[in-house]
Amino acid sequence: LKPRATEPLYRQLARRIESAIRHRAYRAEERLPSVRRLAREQRVSIPTALQAYATLERLGLIVARPKSGFFVRAPATASVPPPTSPPIAARISDLSQTDPLTLIRSDDYDPRRVNLGAAVPSPDRLPGKALGRLLSAAARRLGATGVNYGPLEGVPALRREIARRSLTAGLALQPDRICVTLGATEAVTLALRATCSPGDTVVVESPTFFGLLRQLREMGLKALPIPVDPGTGLDLEALSSALRRTRVSAILVIPNFHNPVGFVMPEASKRELVRIAAAKAIPIIEDDLYADLPHAGPRPKALKAFDREDLVLLCSSFSKSIAPGYRVGYIAGGRWHERIVGLKKANSSGNPPLPSLAIADYLAGGGYDRFLRSFREACRVQVAQMQGALVASFPAGLRLSRPEGGYVLWCELAPSVDSMELFRRAQAEHIAIAPGPTFSSDGRYRNFIRVSCGHPWSDRIEAAVRTLGRLAAAAS
Amino acid sequence: LKPRATEPLYRQLARRIESAIRHRAYRAEERLPSVRRLAREQRVSIPTALQAYATLERLGLIVARPKSGFFVRAPATASVPPPTSPPIAARISDLSQTDPLTLIRSDDYDPRRVNLGAAVPSPDRLPGKALGRLLSAAARRLGATGVNYGPLEGVPALRREIARRSLTAGLALQPDRICVTLGATEAVTLALRATCSPGDTVVVESPTFFGLLRQLREMGLKALPIPVDPGTGLDLEALSSALRRTRVSAILVIPNFHNPVGFVMPEASKRELVRIAAAKAIPIIEDDLYADLPHAGPRPKALKAFDREDLVLLCSSFSKSIAPGYRVGYIAGGRWHERIVGLKKANSSGNPPLPSLAIADYLAGGGYDRFLRSFREACRVQVAQMQGALVASFPAGLRLSRPEGGYVLWCELAPSVDSMELFRRAQAEHIAIAPGPTFSSDGRYRNFIRVSCGHPWSDRIEAAVRTLGRLAAAAS
Repeated sequence: LKPRATEPLYRQLARRIESAIRHRAYRAEERLPSVRRLAREQRVSIPTALQAYATLERLGLIVARPKSGFFVRAPATASVPPPTSPPIAARISDLSQTDPLTLIRSDDYDPRRVNLGAAVPSPDRLPGKALGRLLSAAARRLGATGVNYGPLEGVPALRREIARRSLTAGLALQPDRICVTLGATEAVTLALRATCSPGDTVVVESPTFFGLLRQLREMGLKALPIPVDPGTGLDLEALSSALRRTRVSAILVIPNFHNPVGFVMPEASKRELVRIAAAKAIPIIEDDLYADLPHAGPRPKALKAFDREDLVLLCSSFSKSIAPGYRVGYIAGGRWHERIVGLKKANSSGNPPLPSLAIADYLAGGGYDRFLRSFREACRVQVAQMQGALVASFPAGLRLSRPEGGYVLWCELAPSVDSMELFRRAQAEHIAIAPGPTFSSDGRYRNFIRVSCGHPWSDRIEAAVRTLGRLAAAAS
Repeated sequence: LKPRATEPLYRQLARRIESAIRHRAYRAEERLPSVRRLAREQRVSIPTALQAYATLERLGLIVARPKSGFFVRAPATASVPPPTSPPIAARISDLSQTDPLTLIRSDDYDPRRVNLGAAVPSPDRLPGKALGRLLSAAARRLGATGVNYGPLEGVPALRREIARRSLTAGLALQPDRICVTLGATEAVTLALRATCSPGDTVVVESPTFFGLLRQLREMGLKALPIPVDPGTGLDLEALSSALRRTRVSAILVIPNFHNPVGFVMPEASKRELVRIAAAKAIPIIEDDLYADLPHAGPRPKALKAFDREDLVLLCSSFSKSIAPGYRVGYIAGGRWHERIVGLKKANSSGNPPLPSLAIADYLAGGGYDRFLRSFREACRVQVAQMQGALVASFPAGLRLSRPEGGYVLWCELAPSVDSMELFRRAQAEHIAIAPGPTFSSDGRYRNFIRVSCGHPWSDRIEAAVRTLGRLAAAAS
């Protein structure tokens, strides 16, 4: 808004609010004062206050939400380009050079640290008390038998609930073809052990979640990275071409709300990916961890929904939505199910039944669906707030992902920034981030970082992002 | 007692009681009527009743326990020879032929089945309600944060308690050198992964717990079986000789209350085993699962107590004493500790904190020590009752182990009995046993079975043992 010679009151007011937003006195997704309050505080009439808001809304700076009021709109990410994904040579890596993998610990609770590194939801958002009550109720209900081994595949009540929910993913899983695991981590461990032998090569996305790369390395598997498009996911042409040249034992992908890039593979691409793999009878390990967390609209279909040959091993958990510490994950292992149950036995025996029962009861009682409705919106808001803060705090040249779900942002910084160095400097300021090279099998993404938005916005996070921006500016 | 011409009353009475014991109207470890009641029921004087019991006691048929009364003594196991352990050629096996490993499922709760197969304690004996209350209390105490990830290595309170208890094992473990795992199963998984690569050879005892053989097989490791002596454990001469010829990556043993044989390695043998391994810098993986369950006397020292070079990886859990289904195990990995923590991260991430907190609180409050006092005696009694029932029900030629702790019996049957066939016939009668070949890497122990004594004696178990004896007699 440019000042005019004879400016009406509502425009003067709108200009002041615009300036407040620009200086982050009001931040993305924050609620503005009500019209009545604005009028009183600014000593203007209610129609004038209303007209000021209407002006700002027309300019796309704020947004009206029915029955809630006016909110600062997240900065139009259209003005911030998405991260690049340079074509890469499909070069097999034995992952022995991936030292950065040890950097990120999701269980590392230094209270002085602002943790934007691990993709962990804030306990303030999670139904911890409700689940605790259900856990206690299950322990009481079982009494003396609460210490018994449960079935190796997991408690039937939970497998039934997982099967029911799979309908929303375009699937109809059978309860007795599901195996409960210690988080999605053990699900992927079992999937890799069922389909690969040490020394084998596995296709991974580039970039991909560092935990998956860590698992490949610890199992003596090699990684064959295939680039992803920030909008559509795995580059299927590059995949096809790589498969012509290289024998791979499995394809390991995160098709929904990819970590770290945030995309959802379009259904046509999912169908095509399954077709390519099926033509060569290559198993696909699908990490579906964030799929219950779309920022809007329905849960996207699982890759496994397009799988007619039972070649997709679907891995997921409840760790990213409701209960990280309950460690309840699962795998629908398709034609490897029996093998996976045998491997589960040898790997860790069955899961503890009580946490599974608590989650099964939460799902069965409708608590999970009710929780997701508000949690999805919280994720959207937290991501938008982080986008706004990053744009406001980082030097020009920043490129940001546009995740459609989940709560991580993939950020490309100026080419001169070394994110490992930024990581170390941020650590000295008690701020954790995930540096780009941890998401790659070959040291790529040197000037990228992943920023987690799992916590409700706070002044502490705002200050941490400002510090990060300052460090990035100094480094570039 | 032979009848005499003019027999005093007390001898007549003693003879009748002897006959009742022989016909199992009174069974091993069962309490006999009080002297007063016996006198009343048999219409004799109290001194006569007392003299009858004294006679039987002198004959070794019954035993007086202060303040408790007279009990049927378990059959003098001196008359039943221990199982043999024929010298075996140390032949490396890739375990691909160990199909029987899939037979035993500890989580298999068919209510019609008498489960003498899995080594699982009866929930009737376990502190399930107390642990359930502690679990609920921990969930309440943590409130919203009860769903958080815990530290990767396990909650500090539990690691502290484990370290404190390690003093009774002749050790002084450091809390920060312990990693909590999903049962001892995952502890052994991590120990094997830390010390071996696929294709490597691991020394195992013969016989040994089938679960360990399953783990070797699923990790692509080979087994080199070394015989055990039923009294002293691993044959150290055979071990030394095998190590001269063969490169092995680890030695995997159960030195205390061995499963299935029940021995405790003498301290001198433990010291010598550690010396032999240290001379070649071979790591020893010690499965110490039953060590808290001596039938009498103190807990035996861990092998790791003799380990000056930190070469022993001590694996254990609370699954066999208090809470199978809480799945709380641990590993003190010695010089491999850091590596093991990294492997735990890749294998399954951290354990759920709440079950660990419940167990830590149980230990800290003294509940575990109080529980062990009665549970150890229960184990002793259950094993003695099973020995009595087996001797009474099985055809001649039976040889039985004399476990000094825990609750499994290793039984050698007539050479003509095929225990796999016996297993199948018993299954048809809804009785589970563990057939001998599952405890071997090479199909050995064809005429052996392991019988679990984890449950309080009952008519149902008595009948099952009679049926087993009948099936064994028919097969021999």
